[in-house]
Amino acid sequence: MRFLHTADWHIGKKLHGYDLLKNQQRAMDEILMIAKQEAVDAIVIAGDLYDRSVPGVESVALLNQQLIKINLTEKFPILAISGNHDSSTRLATGSPWYHQTQFHLHTTIEEALTPVELEDVQFFLLPYFEPIATRLFFADEEIRTISQAVLRVVEAMMASFDPTKKHVLVTHFFVAGSLRTDSETMIEVGGLDAVPVDVFEAFDYVALGHLHSKNALKTGKVRYSGSLLKYSLSELNDEKGVWIIDTDTPELTPIFHPLTPLQDMKVVEGSFKELTDPAFYQTFDREAFLHVLLTDQGVIPNMMNQLRAIYPNILSVERLNGHEVVMKERQQRLEKQSPQALSQQFFTDMTGSTFTTKQQQWLERGLAVANDTEKRDN
Amino acid sequence: MRFLHTADWHIGKKLHGYDLLKNQQRAMDEILMIAKQEAVDAIVIAGDLYDRSVPGVESVALLNQQLIKINLTEKFPILAISGNHDSSTRLATGSPWYHQTQFHLHTTIEEALTPVELEDVQFFLLPYFEPIATRLFFADEEIRTISQAVLRVVEAMMASFDPTKKHVLVTHFFVAGSLRTDSETMIEVGGLDAVPVDVFEAFDYVALGHLHSKNALKTGKVRYSGSLLKYSLSELNDEKGVWIIDTDTPELTPIFHPLTPLQDMKVVEGSFKELTDPAFYQTFDREAFLHVLLTDQGVIPNMMNQLRAIYPNILSVERLNGHEVVMKERQQRLEKQSPQALSQQFFTDMTGSTFTTKQQQWLERGLAVANDTEKRDN
Repeated sequence: MRFLHTADWHIGKKLHGYDLLKNQQRAMDEILMIAKQEAVDAIVIAGDLYDRSVPGVESVALLNQQLIKINLTEKFPILAISGNHDSSTRLATGSPWYHQTQFHLHTTIEEALTPVELEDVQFFLLPYFEPIATRLFFADEEIRTISQAVLRVVEAMMASFDPTKKHVLVTHFFVAGSLRTDSETMIEVGGLDAVPVDVFEAFDYVALGHLHSKNALKTGKVRYSGSLLKYSLSELNDEKGVWIIDTDTPELTPIFHPLTPLQDMKVVEGSFKELTDPAFYQTFDREAFLHVLLTDQGVIPNMMNQLRAIYPNILSVERLNGHEVVMKERQQRLEKQSPQALSQQFFTDMTGSTFTTKQQQWLERGLAVANDTEKRDN
Repeated sequence: MRFLHTADWHIGKKLHGYDLLKNQQRAMDEILMIAKQEAVDAIVIAGDLYDRSVPGVESVALLNQQLIKINLTEKFPILAISGNHDSSTRLATGSPWYHQTQFHLHTTIEEALTPVELEDVQFFLLPYFEPIATRLFFADEEIRTISQAVLRVVEAMMASFDPTKKHVLVTHFFVAGSLRTDSETMIEVGGLDAVPVDVFEAFDYVALGHLHSKNALKTGKVRYSGSLLKYSLSELNDEKGVWIIDTDTPELTPIFHPLTPLQDMKVVEGSFKELTDPAFYQTFDREAFLHVLLTDQGVIPNMMNQLRAIYPNILSVERLNGHEVVMKERQQRLEKQSPQALSQQFFTDMTGSTFTTKQQQWLERGLAVANDTEKRDN
């Protein structure tokens, strides 16, 4: 059989305040198109369907509509789990009805232990969970770390393995490092909240969600699909897409299919003069989400508004030069102010109001004590 | 066929801060029991399944579990709509899968126009909506009031009437008054946001939700079921329950089946001495939600804590006597205070902080102007 592996849709996520619903819509539609072109037998979504446990109503409408399209209109089986961003209880709404049409959405450890059998594959759908959940489920107080917890679950799964079938795990954890490396390395790479990759040895393929880069793991059969879109500047150079896995190939070698985003994320570097020159920007993808690197040294009045008039989707502007100068000036300005004025400013920034008489008195008293202590210590 | 009519479950609603999930669980289970005993062919839920558009996660878990029990375990068809307390979009999650097992949940005007046919009945499931929704749906700018809107929808429904079948409407509006009464009466009874009962003449039965009393309408075939529980003190004397409608009876005369709440809502009247006397309270249903009418005149120190030690679920305490005395004392106390002090007190009550110097100045200036004006006017 052939299946498509995607994860981390994060429907409803905003990028530096920009709404991404249209971008998400487009990317989900492209995934559906790939599924049709590749004639897959199932679509795996490895958690974080939503960005928040209580998604906005537009996000609910969008995801509902897309799942209807995939499963009811196009008749693709779906194998999905809840991730750490989803509320497993909220996401589970409707799930007992879904599997009538081969939409399997598992949100509990109990469900994870019963494999979904499609053709020659047993799929185990293990949602994100906290170690406490396995402690309760297995009534085992010894389970402390997430590694122990996942290992315990995998052992229970193996009891249901049909040796005539392939075994695929769909899950959503931070997988890193190896039990076999020395402990220092392991802690360095993953630490206590990481699951070592060896835990998954029994499976033929592990479809992961959680980390947003498809290259987060080097190993072959345990893979992240990466997220639906570039969701932070740190993902600037990631290539987003999905894996297609054919279980008839010897090593289940996944083939990557890239997605073409509605708006890309880019870095642009230059002086303010260069960036606002029509000769430059008229040939540039101005709709992209931009990280601007400005080479100017001096102050540019009304800079953001001028840049945004040309590049409407600026995420951030970084000053390559002159930044230290600005910071130094700011520091000198701050150093000239009294502790009273600084405290008042901070209080106003945080609360929007000014000190009451009583608060003012506390501050004065506190500063007096601090002064005395300083004098004494010197 | 026989169906059960219930509405206004308001899952997640709190009563004066008391959690009602257990009470709701019990009442929903009793409804299921009645449905089994009466061997109904469907269960109608006429809106407000949840109390809030974004229900708490425990409420989601409870309602999900109950709907699974009714529809998947006990195999009862469900005919449900969203009410004004539900988010139609959120509630619609899963609904395209639900009708595979005769769980029909309609949340849009479009869905409402296609009847659900069960045996000899066409059910039209019309969710709560605002007039603007019909203006857009019918592309008719003339629709202004909810009466016009519902009338327009009913006309569209009638085009799909199968004359060989009975016609039942399930909906969720404030139905009151009549088009035939003079306009003054109508406005008095219902007003602009009410739908006159005559609009529903074409139907054999109208299963309403919205008002919480089963006696809110006098007319026979247009009925409120009332809510699942007593949700406010104003419902103290309501009898809660469900209607069973048999479409083979000549007038579709509904039979009422009362529900026995886990905790009732009661009024208790007496002096503090009487109410705290074991001879009295040991024979009293102390677990009930209570509205206490105290006959005492004087001040009773630590009254609430002493009463709550005996009656754990007090909603409110009303002083039958001495109330005026207390109020008069309070008023006299207030009259002695300066406008400045009163303003400061009010500001602190509302914002938790005190006036800034600037605010103090504004107040003084304002009061000076007011004083001047008063002097001049006198």
